[in-house]
Amino acid sequence: MSTYKAPLNDMRFVLYDVLGAEQEFARLGQTDATRDVLDAVFDEAARFTETVLAPLNETGDRIGCRFDKDTGAVTTPPGFKQAYAQFVEGGWTGLVSPVEFGGQGLPYTAGVPLKEMIDAANLAWGNFPLLSHGATDALLHHGEDWQREVFLKPLVDGTWTGTMCLTEPHCGTDLGLLKTRATPNGDGTHSITGTKIFITAGEHDMTDNIVHLVLAKLPDAPAGSKGISLFIVPKFKVARDGTQGDANAVRCGSIEHKMGIHGSATCVLNFDGAQGYLIGQPNKGLMAMFTMMNTARLGVGVQGLGLSDRAWQNALRYSRERLQGRSLSGVKFPDKPADPIIVQPDVRRMLLTCKALVEGGRAMSYHAGLQVDVSEHAPTQEEREQADALVGFLTPIVKACLTEWGIECTYQALQCFGGHGYIAEHGMEQLARDARITTLYEGTTGIQALDLLGRKIMQLQGAGLKIFLGMITQFCDAQSGNEGVAEFIGPLREKTAQWQQLTLQVGQRAKANPEEVGAASYDYLMYSGYVALAYWWARSAAAAAASRHSDAFKQAKLETARFYFARILPRTLAHAAAVGSAASTLTALDEAAFDA
Amino acid sequence: MSTYKAPLNDMRFVLYDVLGAEQEFARLGQTDATRDVLDAVFDEAARFTETVLAPLNETGDRIGCRFDKDTGAVTTPPGFKQAYAQFVEGGWTGLVSPVEFGGQGLPYTAGVPLKEMIDAANLAWGNFPLLSHGATDALLHHGEDWQREVFLKPLVDGTWTGTMCLTEPHCGTDLGLLKTRATPNGDGTHSITGTKIFITAGEHDMTDNIVHLVLAKLPDAPAGSKGISLFIVPKFKVARDGTQGDANAVRCGSIEHKMGIHGSATCVLNFDGAQGYLIGQPNKGLMAMFTMMNTARLGVGVQGLGLSDRAWQNALRYSRERLQGRSLSGVKFPDKPADPIIVQPDVRRMLLTCKALVEGGRAMSYHAGLQVDVSEHAPTQEEREQADALVGFLTPIVKACLTEWGIECTYQALQCFGGHGYIAEHGMEQLARDARITTLYEGTTGIQALDLLGRKIMQLQGAGLKIFLGMITQFCDAQSGNEGVAEFIGPLREKTAQWQQLTLQVGQRAKANPEEVGAASYDYLMYSGYVALAYWWARSAAAAAASRHSDAFKQAKLETARFYFARILPRTLAHAAAVGSAASTLTALDEAAFDA
Repeated sequence: MSTYKAPLNDMRFVLYDVLGAEQEFARLGQTDATRDVLDAVFDEAARFTETVLAPLNETGDRIGCRFDKDTGAVTTPPGFKQAYAQFVEGGWTGLVSPVEFGGQGLPYTAGVPLKEMIDAANLAWGNFPLLSHGATDALLHHGEDWQREVFLKPLVDGTWTGTMCLTEPHCGTDLGLLKTRATPNGDGTHSITGTKIFITAGEHDMTDNIVHLVLAKLPDAPAGSKGISLFIVPKFKVARDGTQGDANAVRCGSIEHKMGIHGSATCVLNFDGAQGYLIGQPNKGLMAMFTMMNTARLGVGVQGLGLSDRAWQNALRYSRERLQGRSLSGVKFPDKPADPIIVQPDVRRMLLTCKALVEGGRAMSYHAGLQVDVSEHAPTQEEREQADALVGFLTPIVKACLTEWGIECTYQALQCFGGHGYIAEHGMEQLARDARITTLYEGTTGIQALDLLGRKIMQLQGAGLKIFLGMITQFCDAQSGNEGVAEFIGPLREKTAQWQQLTLQVGQRAKANPEEVGAASYDYLMYSGYVALAYWWARSAAAAAASRHSDAFKQAKLETARFYFARILPRTLAHAAAVGSAASTLTALDEAAFDA
Repeated sequence: MSTYKAPLNDMRFVLYDVLGAEQEFARLGQTDATRDVLDAVFDEAARFTETVLAPLNETGDRIGCRFDKDTGAVTTPPGFKQAYAQFVEGGWTGLVSPVEFGGQGLPYTAGVPLKEMIDAANLAWGNFPLLSHGATDALLHHGEDWQREVFLKPLVDGTWTGTMCLTEPHCGTDLGLLKTRATPNGDGTHSITGTKIFITAGEHDMTDNIVHLVLAKLPDAPAGSKGISLFIVPKFKVARDGTQGDANAVRCGSIEHKMGIHGSATCVLNFDGAQGYLIGQPNKGLMAMFTMMNTARLGVGVQGLGLSDRAWQNALRYSRERLQGRSLSGVKFPDKPADPIIVQPDVRRMLLTCKALVEGGRAMSYHAGLQVDVSEHAPTQEEREQADALVGFLTPIVKACLTEWGIECTYQALQCFGGHGYIAEHGMEQLARDARITTLYEGTTGIQALDLLGRKIMQLQGAGLKIFLGMITQFCDAQSGNEGVAEFIGPLREKTAQWQQLTLQVGQRAKANPEEVGAASYDYLMYSGYVALAYWWARSAAAAAASRHSDAFKQAKLETARFYFARILPRTLAHAAAVGSAASTLTALDEAAFDA
C-alpha cells in the first residue's frame, strides 16, 4: 500500500519564503491569517489527512461506491461517511468561506495546501466536499438573498453538499446542445426535466440533502450557449423559509464503472419535473457556471499535484529500500548484497523529474491561489482587476499542466517500482488510474489550451500574459547581482523573450487562418507551463538560499533547479517547434484519408 | 466496447512496399513465403483475431483469471481455453517454428503481423502462447537432442505451453542475487527449490502440461550472474522417452492483482524439490535465457504497437461520430447539430500523433523482425553477423520506444473520448491499463536504455549503430533526385549526423565518469527511436508514392510524414539537450537531501 506524509516543510517554504504570503495577507487585510494560525491549521490538516483519509484510500478503490438500482441510493465505501462527519466536525468545509455564512473566513490560498493534502491522501473522497465549493461560489456571486440565506449556510457547514450538473449524454464541451428543460410553474419555481451524466457526488449517503446546480433551457431560450440558465435543484425540496420537504423528482439512474476514483460516485441523474429555483438572470447560466468552474479548475490542477506528490514520496522510499545491482562508479554499500537503486542515475532522473514537477508545481498553484485573494481583497480596483486577469491566465495553465504532470509523475514513480508497480498491493497503480481522470474532467487539456490561447491570449489581448511576463522580468532584474542564481537568469530571460515572440507569431498567423489558434494551442500551453515552472524554480532556488532552511534543503532546491533547467526545460524546444509549424500540418489530411 | 479491425492494408504496405519482404524471403531461400501464402495467412489471422480473440478482451478484463488456493489451480476467463484450442487447431502456434519439429517453417517476420493482431485483439490472451516461443528458442539453441525431441514438438504444436522463470521476490533486474537452488540427484536430474514471482502463464487450464524454464544456482556455482544455470521443469514430470508422469513438485502459490491484463495469469510459483533437467552448460544459464529474452523483447515492443493501433482505430471512429462544437474556419456540417470533433485541429493532433507512431512503429518493428530472418538465413556469414548486430541494436529501441509510444497512444486515444474515455464501457481505459505493463516487463525502459547505450553502443563499439546509420545514408543518397520526399532528406541527414556526434560525446565523457552512460541512457534511447522513426517515415512516404496504393493512401503517408517531421521529430531537441547535460545534474544531489 502506498503511504502519505503531508509535505509541510515544503508547503511552508512555498507560502512564506517563496510567495511571502504572510505579509501579503496582512497587506490584503486578511489579518486573521497569521503564520501561527495557518501553521496550526496545516498541522491539523496533516494529521486528519494522514490518519483519517489516507488509510481509506485503498479500500475506497477496492470496494468503491455501490448503487442500488431499486432505490437509486448510493452507498459510499466503508469509512467515507464517518470521515466526512469528522471533516464537518473539524470545521474544514467552511475554512475559506465567508464568516457571515458560518465559514472561518481564511484566505482562499489557505485552502490550497488543505486541498493538496486531501487529494494526495484520498482523491476519491475529496470529490465529495470539492463540489460544494463551486456551488458556494455560484450562490455567493449570483444567488438572491433568500437563496444565499437558505442554501449557503448548510453548504458552508457541510450539512449538505453541492453538485455541478452540466454534462448530458450528447454534450460535454459544447453546452449549447443541452436538452434539459426548465418550465416555469408560475409560483417562482421551475420544473426541471432532463438527464445529466458524469455528476460527481450526484448521490451519496454522507448528508441529508444535496444541492444540485443544474444547467437547463427555458421555453423561450435563444439557441446555443446564449440560452442556458442555472437552477438550484435540491435532492429534497427546500422551501423559501429553509424548511426541508419531500423528495424532489430527481433520481440517480446509475453510477459509472471507471478506470479509477472508484470511491467517487459519478452519477447519471434523471430530473423528471423536479422543483428548481432560477439562480441569477435567465439565459445567463453559463456565466454563473464559469464562476464555479474557474475555482474547480484550479482545484483539479491541485489534484494532479497531490497525486504526484504521493506517488513520488513512495517512489523515493522504494528507491532507497530496493537493493538491485551496483553503482557503475563503484560499490556504494559493500555491506549489502546490492546497492539501493537510488544510486542509479536513471532512477534519479525519474525521481528528480517528479521532484521538479511537484515542488515547482506547488509554487505555481499556490501563487495562482494567492492571486484569487488579491483579486478579491487588494486595496485598489486596478490591482484587483490585474489579479483577476492573472488568475484567468494562470487557471488553464495550472489545470492542464499540473494534471499532465500528474500523469507523468504517477507514471515515473510507478516505473521506479519495476514490475512491482503494476501490482495492486503497492498502491502505485491506483495513483496512476486515479490521476487519469484529471486531464479529462472540468475541461480536457485541449479545452484548457483553447481557453488559454483562444480566449485569454487572443480575445483578451494577452493581459494576463503581460502581467506574468512583467513579474518574471522584475524578478530577473532584482536578481541581477545574485551569483547564487545567475546561471538561471539568462535562460529564463531567453525563454521569456521567446514566449512573447511565439505569441505574436501565432497571433499574426491567426489573422490569416483561424485554425492556427487550435493548431498551436496545446503546444503553446505546454510551452507556457514549462517556462512558468522555470520561473518558479529560479525563484525557489533564490528563496531557499535566502531562507533559514537547512543546508540540505538549500542544496536540494539548487540542484533540482539545475536539473530542471538542464533536462526538463529543453522540452520547450520541441513545443516551440510545434507552435511554429503551420496549421496545415494538422489540417491538410482529408478526413476520409486518415485510414485510407 | 472498443472494436478491432486488423490493418491488413498497412501491414502489407510495410512488408511489401517499404521492406520488399517478398524479394528478401526469396533471396534468403525462404521459398515457401510467397506473397500468396503470406496474404492467405494474414487474412485468416485477421479473421481469427477479429472474431475469436477480440470479443473475449472485455470479459477477460472484467472476469480475469481465478485462483483456487486449495488446489493451486488457475482458471482462465470464459472463452480463453476454447480460443486457445482453436488457435492450436489452426496451426498458429508453430507458424514460424522449424518444419522438423512440426512447425510451418515460415519466416520469423511473418509472425510479427500475427503477433500484432493477437496483441491488439486480446493482449492478455496473447501472453499464454507468447512465452512458448521463448522456451522453443532456448531449447532449439541450447537443448540436448533428447530434450528437443521430447519438449519441442508439444511446444510447437501447442499441446503444451512454456514459461520463463527468472524473477524472485528480491530480484528482477539483478539476477545475480537469485536464491533458487538446483541439487543434482545423481541420475541426470536436479531437484529445484525456490520461489519465482511474476511468472506469466505460470499456471492455467489451457493445456495438459506446462514447461517451465527456470534459472537456478548449482551447489558449487560462482557468485553473481556467472553462477546461474537454466533448467527444464515441467508441471507434470516427463521422462527422457517423452512419457508424461506424476505432478512435479511445483505449485502456484497465488496470482497477482494487477492494474491490467487481468486475463493473463501472473503467478507465484513455488518449487519444492521439483524434478528438472539442466539445459545447456552449467553456469551458462543467463546466456541461454538471453536467447529467449531477445525475441520476447521484440514481442513486447509489438504488444505496444498492437495496443496503440487498436486505441487509435477507436479514437478515429469516435472523433468522426462525436458531434460537438463547430470548426473555427466555418461550419463543416450545417445539416448536423454540431461538427464532428475530427474537424478540430487539436483532435487531429492527437489522432496524427497516434497514426505517426503506430504506422512508423510498424515499419520499425517489422524491419527488426526481418533482420532476425537475415541473421539466420543470409547466404554469407558476414551478412548474418551484421544482421545479428543490427537485431541486437534495434531490440532495445523497438522494445522501449514502441511500449513508451503505446503509453502515449493509449493516452491520446482515450483523451479523444473526453470523459467517456474514463468509463469502462468504452474499452479505452482497459487499453491504457493493459499498455502500462509493457514498459515494465521483459526489462523496463531504463534497462533497455542501458542495454542500448552501455552494451550495444559502448561495449560493442556501436557496430549495430554503424550499420543502421549506413542504411539511412544509403537511402538519403538514393533519394537525392526524388522531389517527392526532398523535404525530409535534409532534416534526416542532419539528425543522423547529430546522432553520431552525441554518441561520440557520451563516449568521451564516459571515459572520465562511468555514470555518464546511465545518466544519458534514457534520453539517448528516445532520441534514437525518434530519428529511426524519421527514417521510416521518409521511407514510407517514398514507398507510398512509388506504390500502386490509392491516392488517398499516398496523401495520408505524405501528410503524416510531414506531421511527424514538423511536430514529433522536434522532441529530439529536448532529448539531445538532456544527453548533452553532464551526469552531475543527476548525481550531485545527496541521496539524503532528496526530501530534506
